[in-house]
Amino acid sequence: MLKKITTLLFISFLFVFPIFGQKAKYIFFMIGDGMGLNQVNLAEIYAAELAGKNGVFPLVFTQFPYATFGTAYSLSHGVTDSGAGGTALAVGRKTKNGVIGMDSAGTTSYKSIAYAAKAKGMKVGIATSVSIDHATPAAFYANRPSRNMYYEIGLDLIKSNFDFFAGAGFLKPDKTFDNKEAPSLFPQFEKAGYRIIKGYDAFQQAKKSEGKIILTNIDGTDPSALKYAIDQKQDDLKLANITAAAIDALTANDKGEGFFLMVEGGKIDWACHANDGGTTIHEVLDFDESVKLAFEFYKKHPEETLIIVTADHETGGLGIGNGSSRLNTKGFEGQKISQGELSTRIQELRKSSPNASWDDVKKLLQQNLGLWSTAKVDTKDEKELFAAYERSFVNHENESEKSLYASDDKIAALSIAVLNNASSLAWSSKNHSAAYIPIYAIGAGADLFNHKMENTDIPKKVAKAAGLEL
Amino acid sequence: MLKKITTLLFISFLFVFPIFGQKAKYIFFMIGDGMGLNQVNLAEIYAAELAGKNGVFPLVFTQFPYATFGTAYSLSHGVTDSGAGGTALAVGRKTKNGVIGMDSAGTTSYKSIAYAAKAKGMKVGIATSVSIDHATPAAFYANRPSRNMYYEIGLDLIKSNFDFFAGAGFLKPDKTFDNKEAPSLFPQFEKAGYRIIKGYDAFQQAKKSEGKIILTNIDGTDPSALKYAIDQKQDDLKLANITAAAIDALTANDKGEGFFLMVEGGKIDWACHANDGGTTIHEVLDFDESVKLAFEFYKKHPEETLIIVTADHETGGLGIGNGSSRLNTKGFEGQKISQGELSTRIQELRKSSPNASWDDVKKLLQQNLGLWSTAKVDTKDEKELFAAYERSFVNHENESEKSLYASDDKIAALSIAVLNNASSLAWSSKNHSAAYIPIYAIGAGADLFNHKMENTDIPKKVAKAAGLEL
Repeated sequence: MLKKITTLLFISFLFVFPIFGQKAKYIFFMIGDGMGLNQVNLAEIYAAELAGKNGVFPLVFTQFPYATFGTAYSLSHGVTDSGAGGTALAVGRKTKNGVIGMDSAGTTSYKSIAYAAKAKGMKVGIATSVSIDHATPAAFYANRPSRNMYYEIGLDLIKSNFDFFAGAGFLKPDKTFDNKEAPSLFPQFEKAGYRIIKGYDAFQQAKKSEGKIILTNIDGTDPSALKYAIDQKQDDLKLANITAAAIDALTANDKGEGFFLMVEGGKIDWACHANDGGTTIHEVLDFDESVKLAFEFYKKHPEETLIIVTADHETGGLGIGNGSSRLNTKGFEGQKISQGELSTRIQELRKSSPNASWDDVKKLLQQNLGLWSTAKVDTKDEKELFAAYERSFVNHENESEKSLYASDDKIAALSIAVLNNASSLAWSSKNHSAAYIPIYAIGAGADLFNHKMENTDIPKKVAKAAGLEL
Repeated sequence: MLKKITTLLFISFLFVFPIFGQKAKYIFFMIGDGMGLNQVNLAEIYAAELAGKNGVFPLVFTQFPYATFGTAYSLSHGVTDSGAGGTALAVGRKTKNGVIGMDSAGTTSYKSIAYAAKAKGMKVGIATSVSIDHATPAAFYANRPSRNMYYEIGLDLIKSNFDFFAGAGFLKPDKTFDNKEAPSLFPQFEKAGYRIIKGYDAFQQAKKSEGKIILTNIDGTDPSALKYAIDQKQDDLKLANITAAAIDALTANDKGEGFFLMVEGGKIDWACHANDGGTTIHEVLDFDESVKLAFEFYKKHPEETLIIVTADHETGGLGIGNGSSRLNTKGFEGQKISQGELSTRIQELRKSSPNASWDDVKKLLQQNLGLWSTAKVDTKDEKELFAAYERSFVNHENESEKSLYASDDKIAALSIAVLNNASSLAWSSKNHSAAYIPIYAIGAGADLFNHKMENTDIPKKVAKAAGLEL
């Protein structure tokens, strides 16, 4: 009888304290840069509308058993930048906009959750679709008073001794913050024991178990970012490749030490800075492909894996619905390329046919955005587009429109605005907004993510779930 | 020893199964109509900025231990109206926009959570800051193919036999949907055993324990809604009065049967339809005052009370931040009246001084909105305001701008737009949007609200928490 009761007691305790009994050993910390609640919602609505349905078609992470939201403000501003936002998520402290892993004065360094994992003997990986030295990934391994200290952030990568880094490349591998020539980072990385692997093919052929890796895109590609998902061809490096590589590398020769992996979908933010609705949707769906890989891993190790999906801030003040109760996000179906790529195509046309007709330009917009076919263009919008065409192709004015990460042809920017409007979207600005960040969680310790919180609570809760000291 | 272990086992089980052991007996189902995540966030940011702080100052309900979000789409539209939205929250099923508590064809009636509570012997109260026959409250007690069947919805009130109703009044107490004269609802209410009490003073003097009550505003006030919180004077009926009255009435002669109380902050939506930022903030803060009363009740009965705070949809596609990373929601500090009330003041000025000077109008805008004092007006905006003044006061054109619930003077609408812009807000439209609805919960069964859900899941989970059959 006594034994029976004791057993019951034990089972009962197991039931009560699963998170105390089982610490998160495999941690996926996945950040959609600029991915507010409406960006996620939009991707879900678009997926449903494409399938001919009203409502939403869920993503992998929107089905996680825990979902809540948090604040995004920084110590200095109501609207955070990715430096302070990344720092909040990485170290659990608010700081001034622009700072990476330090206090506002830039004098005290903060320890990130990635360092806490490393200190406990876990393997650590940092992966992104933009450059490895960009604000969000940097916040996990660097401590610098300015996010623009790309070279110096690169030096901190060496200091971190983390096991795996991946992204498009490095922005300033041989020029310091004060614009002086400096010894290239790459031989320094190699000297510090990193193998630099270029492209996913090379990674697949490489031995995963031999020391630290830095995976970049192949030579001749843009080191600042992977291509937008909407612009990618079969052979282009994808965030999902990078995520798969990270998992491979961190689990090679697994001795039971576990890992911490940060994955950033960095270009959701860029698409939103450009107010490019269709490209935003495809970036969110592409980010979800990486979450899917994490989820596959989780299914193999459900008791020991924690996946957090969140964002550093919202970008663009996106609104879904611009007057009518009938949505038409399906209007983006015909968008085949990003605004940036469309700019390039228009510039190419201007070069090859400086006197291209309005019909030529219309055809280009129709083929690439679906204007006048899958998306309606009203008379007023057509008039504006034609006026932009006249300025550019008839009067030969050099017209471009600048957003944070792009300087786009005005016909391209205007066409995307027309497409947004026909597809039920409205944007508040080309900057970040103060909207809450979404938080989704599954696995060991996921139940800690059940209430509205500060962004700084997120790494603290991850630390709690994994038994790390932050 | 055996006894000790048994005791331990018992305590352990108590710890594990509080929600299974303790059903929600007192249920507060509180709905901010049109209150999206950004509306709540804005109120929190404004409260912090007023106190001279960056960040957020939490509301009562934003501190609840559970917070998540849900979809808002209806069966017919990507963007719901309050009929289908209220129906989803009340009965747990999606329907066509405009329908109250029925299927899309308007042939099958659905049972609401309020009826389920009544069937279990609980007392039921329905309270709102708008008219009692408006879509959201109606969804809990009526079954009609159209939200505009105000008279017929009033008849359903009698059928419900619920214990307490409160709101501004009734929209069409003696005219049917097909516009025919009909016997007034009021004597019919009385015949059905309802006491009609007008105003909070009368309520306080009335015996609470003698049967069913319908509480409305006093004679001579607008039956369609209470005044906006920002426009209310000391003696005006407030949503918090109505909430306090509801709690009083439902707990009078408490025989342990418990209660279900729906409280709607109905004018958040109206303020957002008008894109009136300051009025929106005060409506959310005012709604929080009612949540506070529920929370006070919860503190006395923490094991048996469940409070849910949610919304039927977002209105206006509100964005916080319109370009700068520095927010200035404090710009609304000088707004003393709603856009509607400002319209009235301008119309009064036009009557009393048809040739009022620009300085007279400027003074009015300064005194009531803080323009040119607490909120900056740039040259371009001043030019536009002056042009509107000229049309109205010099050329005597009758200029008004219509939104769903108001027809406002154009100078008033333009002034509010200028104030929004100076105070970091941007709106997508004057209609509802497809944004997620926020969900906050505390008390018995609150832990069911921990993941992203359909709006229809909300009443189902409330039913589960309370052991009701929905």
